[in-house]
Amino acid sequence: MASSLLTRQLTISLQQNLRLTTTVCRYVSKTATKTESEFEYDSPSMKTQVPGPRSQELLRQLGDIQNVGAVHFFCNYEESRGNYLVDVDGNRMLDVYTQISSIPIGYNHPALMKVMTNPNNLSAFVNRPALGILPPENFPEKLIESLLSVAPSGMTRVQTMACGSCSNENAFKAMFIWYKNKERGHNNPSEEDIGSCMINQSPGCPDLSILSFMGGFHGRTLGCLATTHSKPIHKLDIPSFDWPIAPFPRLQYPLEEFVRENAQEEARCLEEVEDLIIKWRQKGKPVAGIVIEPIQAEGGDNHASPDFFIKLRNIAQKHGCAFHVDEVQTGCGATGKFWAHEHWGLDDPADVVSFSKKMLTGGFFHKNELQADKPYRIFNTWMGDPSKNLLLAEVLNVIRREDLLAEVARSGKALLQGLYALQAQYPHILSSARGQGTFCAIDAHKSTVRDSIMLKARNKGAFLGSCGEKAIRFRPSLIFKEYHAHQVLNILNDVLAEHK
Amino acid sequence: MASSLLTRQLTISLQQNLRLTTTVCRYVSKTATKTESEFEYDSPSMKTQVPGPRSQELLRQLGDIQNVGAVHFFCNYEESRGNYLVDVDGNRMLDVYTQISSIPIGYNHPALMKVMTNPNNLSAFVNRPALGILPPENFPEKLIESLLSVAPSGMTRVQTMACGSCSNENAFKAMFIWYKNKERGHNNPSEEDIGSCMINQSPGCPDLSILSFMGGFHGRTLGCLATTHSKPIHKLDIPSFDWPIAPFPRLQYPLEEFVRENAQEEARCLEEVEDLIIKWRQKGKPVAGIVIEPIQAEGGDNHASPDFFIKLRNIAQKHGCAFHVDEVQTGCGATGKFWAHEHWGLDDPADVVSFSKKMLTGGFFHKNELQADKPYRIFNTWMGDPSKNLLLAEVLNVIRREDLLAEVARSGKALLQGLYALQAQYPHILSSARGQGTFCAIDAHKSTVRDSIMLKARNKGAFLGSCGEKAIRFRPSLIFKEYHAHQVLNILNDVLAEHK
Repeated sequence: MASSLLTRQLTISLQQNLRLTTTVCRYVSKTATKTESEFEYDSPSMKTQVPGPRSQELLRQLGDIQNVGAVHFFCNYEESRGNYLVDVDGNRMLDVYTQISSIPIGYNHPALMKVMTNPNNLSAFVNRPALGILPPENFPEKLIESLLSVAPSGMTRVQTMACGSCSNENAFKAMFIWYKNKERGHNNPSEEDIGSCMINQSPGCPDLSILSFMGGFHGRTLGCLATTHSKPIHKLDIPSFDWPIAPFPRLQYPLEEFVRENAQEEARCLEEVEDLIIKWRQKGKPVAGIVIEPIQAEGGDNHASPDFFIKLRNIAQKHGCAFHVDEVQTGCGATGKFWAHEHWGLDDPADVVSFSKKMLTGGFFHKNELQADKPYRIFNTWMGDPSKNLLLAEVLNVIRREDLLAEVARSGKALLQGLYALQAQYPHILSSARGQGTFCAIDAHKSTVRDSIMLKARNKGAFLGSCGEKAIRFRPSLIFKEYHAHQVLNILNDVLAEHK
Repeated sequence: MASSLLTRQLTISLQQNLRLTTTVCRYVSKTATKTESEFEYDSPSMKTQVPGPRSQELLRQLGDIQNVGAVHFFCNYEESRGNYLVDVDGNRMLDVYTQISSIPIGYNHPALMKVMTNPNNLSAFVNRPALGILPPENFPEKLIESLLSVAPSGMTRVQTMACGSCSNENAFKAMFIWYKNKERGHNNPSEEDIGSCMINQSPGCPDLSILSFMGGFHGRTLGCLATTHSKPIHKLDIPSFDWPIAPFPRLQYPLEEFVRENAQEEARCLEEVEDLIIKWRQKGKPVAGIVIEPIQAEGGDNHASPDFFIKLRNIAQKHGCAFHVDEVQTGCGATGKFWAHEHWGLDDPADVVSFSKKMLTGGFFHKNELQADKPYRIFNTWMGDPSKNLLLAEVLNVIRREDLLAEVARSGKALLQGLYALQAQYPHILSSARGQGTFCAIDAHKSTVRDSIMLKARNKGAFLGSCGEKAIRFRPSLIFKEYHAHQVLNILNDVLAEHK
C-alpha cells in the first residue's frame, strides 16, 4: 500500500515536472530576470500533488485535536525562503497568499534572523510584560522607531493589541467612549450610568451602533462580527447587534471605462449611508462610528474611488460619527503606499486606523480626541507584545532600505498588466482584473472554476488565496518582484490553457 | 533642579534602606532560607521611591503616545530574575503580581533562554504562520507535548488563540454553534438562517445568551464584556447584550467557620441560576452556555465550594447549557493543582476550559461535541502563535522537573498561614484572608487603606496587585518559595506596624 502510494506520487511528480518544463506558448510574460535577493530560491519546484503524503499523514494527526477542514497543507518553515513556501513533502511554491497576507518581507529574512540572534533582544521574547502597567524601558523609543514612524496623517497616538480582532474591538470601544462623552458634554457618568452598565443595560451600556458595509470584514469576535458581512459561515448561529449595514459600491472594472456608472453606484451607496445614520438615530441607536476597509478584501477585493471615501468621510463628520479605516489587510505597503487610504489624497482621512497582519503586531492609531479619558477603559493583560514591535522595527528598516514600496508599485504593475492580458485572452473564464500595487484580484466566472484554477496552480507551484464569491486574490509579500509576477502569471497561463 | 532632585532621591533612598534594615519585631515569619534557584536574587533592594525619576521621565514620554494612567513604573526586564522585578531606577522588587498573573516561572528563566538560543527554534519566531490553514510540520507534535499533556479531564481537543479575550469569544461561539445545531437536530441551516445572518438578524444570528455571574471577569471585547461584571470602568459606554447575570456566592471566611451560612448563600445563588435560565428561555433568549471562573479573580478573589460547582454543573446539564470554566487566571498551577477546577473532584467538570496568561498562549480545550461542525467557523488569521507553544512546552517541562505544583502548595500554605496571622494581629485593618495554593487574597477594611498598604509595600520591595473593591491579591509565579512568602509577609507586617 505504502509502495503503491509512493509509485503513484512518483508518477504524479514526473508528470508535474514534465508539464512544468514543456510549457505552452507564454502570452503574458517578459523573460524572467532572476531575483536579486541572495537568500531565496529562484523558482517553484514540485515533487508531489499538494497536499502530499506527509501532509495527509499530519492532517490525520491534527484532525484528532482540531477541525482541520481549512488546512491546505503542512509547511516546512525552516526551509522556506523569501517568496517561496516549502511544504513537508518538499514542494516549493511561490507564495502569493503569504499566510493570509500576513508575511511582510518573506520567509526567514536574514534581517529578522539577525534580530533573533541578537542577545540584547532575548529578554523581550521570554519576559512578556503587561504593557499597560509595566512597560519595558525601551517601549516609548521602540514605538517611536516602529509604529509612530509610519503613523498615518493626523495620528499621533497608537495602542498596540495582540491581533486584528482585538484591534478593531478596542477601536470600536474608543469610538463609543468618545461618542458618549461628547453626548454627555463631560466625562462624569451618572450613578444611573454606573449602576446600569454592570447589568448590561442602558444608559450605562448605551444602544450605540457602528455602521459597516455589506461585504466588509472586520474580524470574528462578537463586536467585530457585527460589522463583518462577507460570508454566512462567519456569522451563522452567533448572536449579533442590530447595527446599520450600508451597501458597498459594486463597481465595474476596469474603473477607467465605467466612470459614470461607478459614480452613480457610489452616490447610491452614500445616500444609503446617510439614510441609515438618520434612521438609526431615530431608532435610538445612534451611529458612533463608521468602519470601512479601503479595499474590501475578504469580501472579494471590492474597490471604491477616492471620491467615494472623501464623501463618506464628510458624511461621518457632518453627523458626528467617528471614521475608522480598517487597514488590517491593506496596510503595510501592499497597495504601493504604506497605508491604502493614502491613495485618497485627504489631509484628514480618518479618526482611527487599525492594523495587524503584516505589521506583526495588532493595534490602532487614533487622534488625540479618541484617547479614552480614563485608564483601564482600553486595557487588557498584554496590550500587544513588544517582541513583535522589535521585529516590526526591523521590517520597517528593510522596507526603507530596499525601497520596497517602489518595488511593490513595479511588480504590482507587471502583475495587473498580466491579469489584464489573461482576461483578454480568456474572457469566458476571467473578468474584472483589479488592483493597487500587488494587492490584486481577478474574478473567475464561477466559484467552482475559481477553486479548480487555484488547485491546479498550486500543483504547478503557485499558492494563491481566494476571496468573495469567485475571486482569486494576490497577496504576495513586499519582496515580490516583477520576476515573481511573471512566474505566477506563467503558471496561471498554463492552467488556463489546459482548462476545459 | 536636577541636582536637588538627585539629593531628594538620595535622601529617600537612604531612608528606605534604613527602614529595611531596622525592621520591627516580625510576627509572621520563620527565618528565611535562601532560595535554591541559582539564577535569581535573594531579596528586594530599593534605591528610590517607586516610580523613581527615570520611570517618571519615561511616563511623560509614553504619555504623548498613550493613556498612561494605569502604568505603575517602567521595568528593566533584562536585569529582572526569577521572582524579582527590576525597575529602570534600579529598584528590585519581589514580584507577587507577575504581570497580572501571567509569568509562569519567573523572569529570564534559564530554560526559556535556552529555547531562544536554540537555532532550531528561530524559524518559529520569524515565520508566524496562519495556523488554521498552513500549520508547521511539528504543530501536532508540539500540541501533544504542550497543551494536550495538561488537558483537563474529559478534554481531547484544543484550539489555540492569541489572548484570553479571543479564547473566551471563540469558546462562546463554539457553544452557540453547538447549541444551535442541537436545537435544529442537524447542521444544515435554512435559507432564512443564511440570509438573515448576513444582516445580523434572527434566526441566522439567534437571540442566544451566555449566563455569567456578578463579579465575574471574562475579558473586554464586546462578547466577553457582556459576561464581565467586576468594575463599571470596564463596561461603561460600551453596548452590550441582554444576557442573564446570576449572583455569585458571597462567602464568609474562613470557610470552615461558616459552613452553614455559606451553604445557604450558595443555594440561593444556584436557585437564581435556574430561575434565570427559565426566564431567559421564556424571553426567547435561551442560555447556550454558562461561564464561570473557579475563583473570581478580577472581581475580588471570591471563592465558592466544590459543592457549588458540582451543583452548577448539574444545572447546566439539566437545562442543556454548555458549561465553560474560564481558567485564564486560575489555570497553570497557581492553586496547587494544574487547573483550579480539579479541586472540585468531578469526573466531568466542564464542556469547555479556556486559558491564557501563564500558559503564554491563549486557547480553549473542549469536548468532541463542542467541535465546530465546519471549517472557518472558529477561525482567524493567526489562531495563536506556535512560538508561544514552544515556550509553553518548556515551561511545562520545568513545572514537572522541579515539581512546582508541590512547591506552590508548600509556599501557598506558608503564605495563607501568614495572612491569617496578620489579620489576627490587625483585625481593624485586615479580614477574609483566603486562598488556594499561592492564589491568595486578603481584604483591607476599605479601598483607600488597601491602596495605601500596597504603595507602602511596593516602596519596601514587594509588588502586589489589587482586585475587587478592597482586596489585595497575591499572584506570584510558580517558582515562589516559602522563603519568598516570608519576605512578602515581613514587608506587609512592617507596613501594617507603621499604619496609622
